[in-house]
Amino acid sequence: MGNYCFGIDVGGTTVKMGLFRIDGQVLDKWEIPTRTENGGKAILPDIAASVLAKLKEKGIDKEEVSGIGIGVPGPINAEGTVPHTANLGWGYKEVTKELQELTGLICKGGNDANVAALGEMWKGAAAGHKSGVMVTLGTGVGGGIIIEGRIIAGTNGAGGEIGHIHVDDSIPWNCGCGNQGCLEQVASANGTVRLAKWMMEGKEIQTILRPDTMTSKDIWDAVKAGDAFAAEVAERFGKYLGLALANIASTVDPEVFVIGGGVSKAGVIILDYIKKYYVKYTFKGCRNAEFVLATLGNDAGIFGSAKLVIEE
Amino acid sequence: MGNYCFGIDVGGTTVKMGLFRIDGQVLDKWEIPTRTENGGKAILPDIAASVLAKLKEKGIDKEEVSGIGIGVPGPINAEGTVPHTANLGWGYKEVTKELQELTGLICKGGNDANVAALGEMWKGAAAGHKSGVMVTLGTGVGGGIIIEGRIIAGTNGAGGEIGHIHVDDSIPWNCGCGNQGCLEQVASANGTVRLAKWMMEGKEIQTILRPDTMTSKDIWDAVKAGDAFAAEVAERFGKYLGLALANIASTVDPEVFVIGGGVSKAGVIILDYIKKYYVKYTFKGCRNAEFVLATLGNDAGIFGSAKLVIEE
Repeated sequence: MGNYCFGIDVGGTTVKMGLFRIDGQVLDKWEIPTRTENGGKAILPDIAASVLAKLKEKGIDKEEVSGIGIGVPGPINAEGTVPHTANLGWGYKEVTKELQELTGLICKGGNDANVAALGEMWKGAAAGHKSGVMVTLGTGVGGGIIIEGRIIAGTNGAGGEIGHIHVDDSIPWNCGCGNQGCLEQVASANGTVRLAKWMMEGKEIQTILRPDTMTSKDIWDAVKAGDAFAAEVAERFGKYLGLALANIASTVDPEVFVIGGGVSKAGVIILDYIKKYYVKYTFKGCRNAEFVLATLGNDAGIFGSAKLVIEE
Repeated sequence: MGNYCFGIDVGGTTVKMGLFRIDGQVLDKWEIPTRTENGGKAILPDIAASVLAKLKEKGIDKEEVSGIGIGVPGPINAEGTVPHTANLGWGYKEVTKELQELTGLICKGGNDANVAALGEMWKGAAAGHKSGVMVTLGTGVGGGIIIEGRIIAGTNGAGGEIGHIHVDDSIPWNCGCGNQGCLEQVASANGTVRLAKWMMEGKEIQTILRPDTMTSKDIWDAVKAGDAFAAEVAERFGKYLGLALANIASTVDPEVFVIGGGVSKAGVIILDYIKKYYVKYTFKGCRNAEFVLATLGNDAGIFGSAKLVIEE
């Protein structure tokens, strides 16, 4: 196994790239644009060219490279094939096979939320743990399940799709997935705002929050400022997440939960609200699971992708 | 690796034992009593003596034996140690180490519900699948999660404790675990009866069911006989199980769900009720998971235990 590897995180706008030593040290980190036009056919050739240019720049031989790990925003199977990735313009694509042919380097692939979880387990908030669940509270709610150091990708690539755990029959609107009552609809950045508006509906409420303009950050700022209504929203947010994570614990019983994404920037206060309800709902054997905030931010994906090609 | 192995399933009353060829053929199957008195100190020596006697009887050398797999009714860690197993009388016990010393054979251990799941995946209802979830609807609700042929045992031995998934805030009584709203309380044999009584409370209901004497079997017989109230109970049972399994699917996305235990003797009708709600609640990517009834019955444990010592 070579001493170097690449971690690639393909997003809808930019591709994040990292050159790593296999002990996890980042040697270089850069971005290239994601060219989604023409069915995204330039994306993999662009990545390959950038990898090969970086090797030349650094004077590293291909023989010294363990491989390239790549995270993509959609389901990807064990063979590194995606059925369809809408926001990259891709239809069916043999991602790792193609990238391997373009670079002459071994390639492994994973879903972006899953590799971010692997990154946090390897060098982030959960380093030193073998089993953990990461929850990304961003535009949506993403997740990744890591057991004994391996991603649980799932039969249909839906392992860790915890944003679609059903948490409440009474949520009256639909999720993007077509179901009703999904965690994502009340716990993502947009979801928290939707939750707050729903809780305001038809009521006279005293709050510093302004229904038309409030953001998830506004809600957490209001909680910190002592706003009683915002605190009620935070309780409900905590209840939904605590319940979902308790039910995940009764399934895979992880050592640690890592909470990341934009919403988590509100800080440890969100862990307090989640843990309060986690402890209420979880099986007693799982009550001592740790809760930590993600630390790698937008770099979690390149770390986790790199880890895909590093054997322990 | 030898051509033979033993699968042992330790219960509170009897120890089920099987001598297998490593291709899964059962050569012999028998039981010995579980002597739980004196802190259960005779249990492992009794098992060891029975294993050694069987080898002598069959004329098999120890060198021809791959090992002994043992399932125990409680949490057991990767080192084969149990903290405490109330219904065997055991306190802290190094189960596999002790059995290994007593027999001179390699031993591996697992929780009984988990090894039953492994048994059904290996030679039972889910043979040929790599990832599956087994639900045992018996006195309680047990479970086992198998991913890529391996048991997800969990950090605290609580992997697959799906009887303690929280399904309803409104269930007014406590579960044995101390929480309220656990699946086990409304979906086990006793739980289905409790559910039916709860749904009868304070209402005038036309039904052939008799509240004081009804069993889970009576309820399913009444469903089959066209009793409208029993059908309502079945719908609620299906809703709770369908919801819990949908949320498990968003976590580990298995190929197949295996439903076993006494309640499952009612037949495929229970699958129909579960699937109806599973499809409603599950993430669309997981909608095609298979649902099958367990086929190994009480032998699932010895099959799964045997599989613990067989490498693919």
